Amino acid sequence: MRRVRGVLIDLSGTVHVDEHAIAGSVEAVRKLLALGATGAGPQVRFVTNTSKESAHSLRARLVRLGVLEADTPPPSSSLIFSSLTAARAHLLARSLRPLLLLSEDSLADFADLPTDNPNAVVLGLAPDQFHYSRLNEAFRLLVANPSAPLIAVNKSRYMKVADGGLSLGTGAFAAALEFSTGRTAAVIGKPSKGFFQTVLDDMGCQAEEAVMIGDDLLDDVGGAQEAGIRGYLVRTGKFRAEDEQHDLVHPDGIFDNLAAAIDHIIIIIVTSSHLTP
Amino acid sequence: MRRVRGVLIDLSGTVHVDEHAIAGSVEAVRKLLALGATGAGPQVRFVTNTSKESAHSLRARLVRLGVLEADTPPPSSSLIFSSLTAARAHLLARSLRPLLLLSEDSLADFADLPTDNPNAVVLGLAPDQFHYSRLNEAFRLLVANPSAPLIAVNKSRYMKVADGGLSLGTGAFAAALEFSTGRTAAVIGKPSKGFFQTVLDDMGCQAEEAVMIGDDLLDDVGGAQEAGIRGYLVRTGKFRAEDEQHDLVHPDGIFDNLAAAIDHIIIIIVTSSHLTP
Repeated sequence: MRRVRGVLIDLSGTVHVDEHAIAGSVEAVRKLLALGATGAGPQVRFVTNTSKESAHSLRARLVRLGVLEADTPPPSSSLIFSSLTAARAHLLARSLRPLLLLSEDSLADFADLPTDNPNAVVLGLAPDQFHYSRLNEAFRLLVANPSAPLIAVNKSRYMKVADGGLSLGTGAFAAALEFSTGRTAAVIGKPSKGFFQTVLDDMGCQAEEAVMIGDDLLDDVGGAQEAGIRGYLVRTGKFRAEDEQHDLVHPDGIFDNLAAAIDHIIIIIVTSSHLTP
Repeated sequence: MRRVRGVLIDLSGTVHVDEHAIAGSVEAVRKLLALGATGAGPQVRFVTNTSKESAHSLRARLVRLGVLEADTPPPSSSLIFSSLTAARAHLLARSLRPLLLLSEDSLADFADLPTDNPNAVVLGLAPDQFHYSRLNEAFRLLVANPSAPLIAVNKSRYMKVADGGLSLGTGAFAAALEFSTGRTAAVIGKPSKGFFQTVLDDMGCQAEEAVMIGDDLLDDVGGAQEAGIRGYLVRTGKFRAEDEQHDLVHPDGIFDNLAAAIDHIIIIIVTSSHLTP
């Protein structure tokens, strides 16, 4: 078994569902973090495709759930990589000034970016922003500036909402702008290879030394594997039985839940530390 | 030359641009209508892909422009076939109860249709309706009722607006609902064959006895030809020089404007009435 120096953990559907921790996940993650703090264990990063919650809000939930202490070292904000923080890094690296169609909360991740005379459009889940005049503002920016990128934090078709029904996802509005501009939205976050590479770089570890754990067969497991990272699937969250028999994506491990996946990783670590001291 | 018993005339870009008649068009149409009234001339119908103006409003403009008298016989509302009136006929024929995402004005064409417990979605150009909660209402209806059709009055990518800029067209919002439902919108109006056939049926004439005149190479000329109708292109409205050298669509006639096209048709009528008394 290959050694494990980095563990990437999905949040929603893997650690928690809404405000409820999935049984055993809090204790398991704390065990892994404690092991990491001793120097014997792996580095840990949380990776999520949220399109509406800032890193600050995500961290606050992890503290509420008991996964993190309020003062967990290293500075716990850098433990979290979201599609929003990735979009921010993408804009910064290219010196882009975004027109932000984002939720109020997620704007916090972009607070320090210049937004005057914008030359890029960023779309997250923002029902308040999805109306004709605001979408038309984005459309006109893209038409006026043929090199301005259209960036979608994700392209989800729909999402499950509190009343149990489905509601339109960010992808619908990306599709609307794609249709009228003839451009294709760049999707940031999982499963893009660049997203996983950014997290590996931050941990300073190689793809083959890392494991990704998540409930989404394509975005978590398939995306990680494309980036050379082992992908473990958990049978929680959006997992469906047919995910175990998928034509194209075959997880490196399938576990009942995050706790079981982490136990397995700890065994690998203990075993490999005996073999390669 | 084949005889002409029916003439279909596009409105915007052919008879008028906004509130201004194109030079010569008013007199030419009146001449054709007068000829029709004697029994010697063809029947005339106006065919338009409007996605926001009711038949009542379209007729009122033709009266304002002087094309029609307020009391033009036959009942002048039936002179006008729009993509909206076609959508209405489509719904009626299938006993559908529509959720209408339409402009205030165009709702008049649907006033007598049942809209309780809707089982179809109709999309026209309606910026006031294009916001998250209304679009989500349409999405949920389509998800809940897999046989409910998604009907788009047109699928335009964008439109030119008063300030000279481009703005998002109906097609963007049809694309949004298509993306999230996985369904394809049925497009009513030109260039659909069914639309042209409805107009032919109303005139009681065969496709080969009819001529369509318009400024849109694909929707007017190409659509008419697909339905077996001669297609005449006019060099007004959205006409562009390259339309005369299109790979696929070759008009049966190209004229500087509607007046010239109608003069040509009157010559055909006079000639053929001598040949086949």
